[in-house]
Amino acid sequence: MNGGNGPSSYARNSSYQRRAIETAEAFLRKEIPARVNLTNRSFSSFTIADFGCSSGPNTILAVDIIIQALDNKFSSSMPKTKTPAFQVFFNDVSHTDFNALFALLPPQRPYFVAGVPGSFYGNLFPKASLNLAYSSCALCWISELPPELSDTTSPAYNKSRIHYTGAQAEVAQAYSCQYEKDIKSFLSARSHELAEDGLMALIVPGVPDGFLESQSQASTGSEFNLLGSCFMDMAREGVIKEEQVDSFNLPVYYPTPKELEDIIISNGELAIEKMVTLDGAEAQDTMPELESRVLYLRAALEGLIRTHFGHQILDDLFDRYSLKLAHSSFILNPQTHKSIMIFTLLTRRH
Amino acid sequence: MNGGNGPSSYARNSSYQRRAIETAEAFLRKEIPARVNLTNRSFSSFTIADFGCSSGPNTILAVDIIIQALDNKFSSSMPKTKTPAFQVFFNDVSHTDFNALFALLPPQRPYFVAGVPGSFYGNLFPKASLNLAYSSCALCWISELPPELSDTTSPAYNKSRIHYTGAQAEVAQAYSCQYEKDIKSFLSARSHELAEDGLMALIVPGVPDGFLESQSQASTGSEFNLLGSCFMDMAREGVIKEEQVDSFNLPVYYPTPKELEDIIISNGELAIEKMVTLDGAEAQDTMPELESRVLYLRAALEGLIRTHFGHQILDDLFDRYSLKLAHSSFILNPQTHKSIMIFTLLTRRH
Repeated sequence: MNGGNGPSSYARNSSYQRRAIETAEAFLRKEIPARVNLTNRSFSSFTIADFGCSSGPNTILAVDIIIQALDNKFSSSMPKTKTPAFQVFFNDVSHTDFNALFALLPPQRPYFVAGVPGSFYGNLFPKASLNLAYSSCALCWISELPPELSDTTSPAYNKSRIHYTGAQAEVAQAYSCQYEKDIKSFLSARSHELAEDGLMALIVPGVPDGFLESQSQASTGSEFNLLGSCFMDMAREGVIKEEQVDSFNLPVYYPTPKELEDIIISNGELAIEKMVTLDGAEAQDTMPELESRVLYLRAALEGLIRTHFGHQILDDLFDRYSLKLAHSSFILNPQTHKSIMIFTLLTRRH
Repeated sequence: MNGGNGPSSYARNSSYQRRAIETAEAFLRKEIPARVNLTNRSFSSFTIADFGCSSGPNTILAVDIIIQALDNKFSSSMPKTKTPAFQVFFNDVSHTDFNALFALLPPQRPYFVAGVPGSFYGNLFPKASLNLAYSSCALCWISELPPELSDTTSPAYNKSRIHYTGAQAEVAQAYSCQYEKDIKSFLSARSHELAEDGLMALIVPGVPDGFLESQSQASTGSEFNLLGSCFMDMAREGVIKEEQVDSFNLPVYYPTPKELEDIIISNGELAIEKMVTLDGAEAQDTMPELESRVLYLRAALEGLIRTHFGHQILDDLFDRYSLKLAHSSFILNPQTHKSIMIFTLLTRRH
């Protein structure tokens, strides 16, 4: 993600993620307090970790919503007891712009704060130290690219593309295997870190069940397809080499609700208390404008592209993308597009 | 402190602080494990907070020393019990370069990590959540400048100087009052945050008892006097205005051991287990070279000076300082200079 607060920064181009949180707000407000078990223990403090917080303002918005809801629950259920102190850990990969994130924090806030650098696919906290683990729009980044995507001898070799959307089934299969491995690591790390009666709330961008089979172009991921075609145009014109495109793949995977559910069940350490899919009207119109759609994608992907292709191609690439997007169904027929969000609430099994 | 890793960065110019930690190493290794009470409770995790960590490598060095020592203690005292997981919180003011600090962390480390932005003169952690509070070379920065220093009608008006060293007694008195207020806030916040049997280890740069009365020029703080005279030279030449110097004061205070002890005793929530002064031979030769002395001071003070005078004067100022320092007793008679370090170990009273 682009750090800082400039025009291409993630902080200023994350309306999609903001919308996801706003859409899930009602669920957060209702479901989290309903599942916090106050009978078993008295909380002197309540620890919350936001996994994959990035450096934008949305992470702070979500934390505000959650703490407000918990605060209401504590004060209404136990009016004579002091509400516990909240301690919030903001986690993301080490190269996240934590300086920018800390600068966004309101000086007066009803919680103690800490930033935790590191991959959430590994352990980041001591055993049983978290009361609530939260993650929004982050469990779509896989930890590494399956090597077969760049292996010319593999059926999963992803030639002329940068993502599995629109590619042959083997490519999607390779991504899917990696995703399963990653989410298992995530769940296993969090099970270890969650306290007794600990909760986990996840907002995961996904695709509808049956998506891979239908190879639908009208959903999450198809923007990557459009971007991939811009790379190929540049390769044909000799601006970049075709091999560069062949060896570049986006480490992003969108699961179906069924797929995510199966992984959670196979982990076995966490019980699914609630799982709903938010789609349709709520998820539409998040970015009706061309420019904001382009800036959003650029904020999210620029770092990866720069590392692989160099910074020189960035403006050219996103100019081309902007032109293609203007003539795409994203802009011309937004109603045909569906992006779904999977909201799930898990508890640690005893 | 200057962030990043450039030639003027704190990270590359903190040999003084490094030397302080190396000097205190034997104490840290011996005294901390000796005071950790393992009988009363079993630790599933052990939390350490470094208050005023800055963004240099020294903070990581100190944490390594402490964790090694604790690890030895745990494994020798309770060979059948698993050593607890260590969680280390690195704290400093919000505008600290946490990105630079996180980049310095070794990828393989025997502890979980978190960065905590905010002033350590206020509460930063939930009640009773820390097992060890640590601070090195940070409890010399006062939280604000006493207003009387820039009040032309006050006897503490600090005309033509930037620090109390060498100034009239009222100036030092104003600094001293502010220091007492700040350290009381620090101790009170830490008492709240320390767990039962919690420990606090402080390394505080100071001056020998009787220093203020003797007005000795040969100790900590007199470099500020030298720097102040460079400002005044620049004012006389019209490079800056004299009023700018009159209204500029460094928020740094060096207590005597007696002074620090009195503040801790008056707080009453913490018991002094050990208090020693490290001086003489150990503290000499920390920066025998002219250039490193200049860079050290610049790394520590540049930000403050830039805010008040603008960045244009920086090179000129430190060139002048370098010339004066070359002809000063710091370089010509280093043996006459004494900088002392106060090392103290405190426990939370029940």
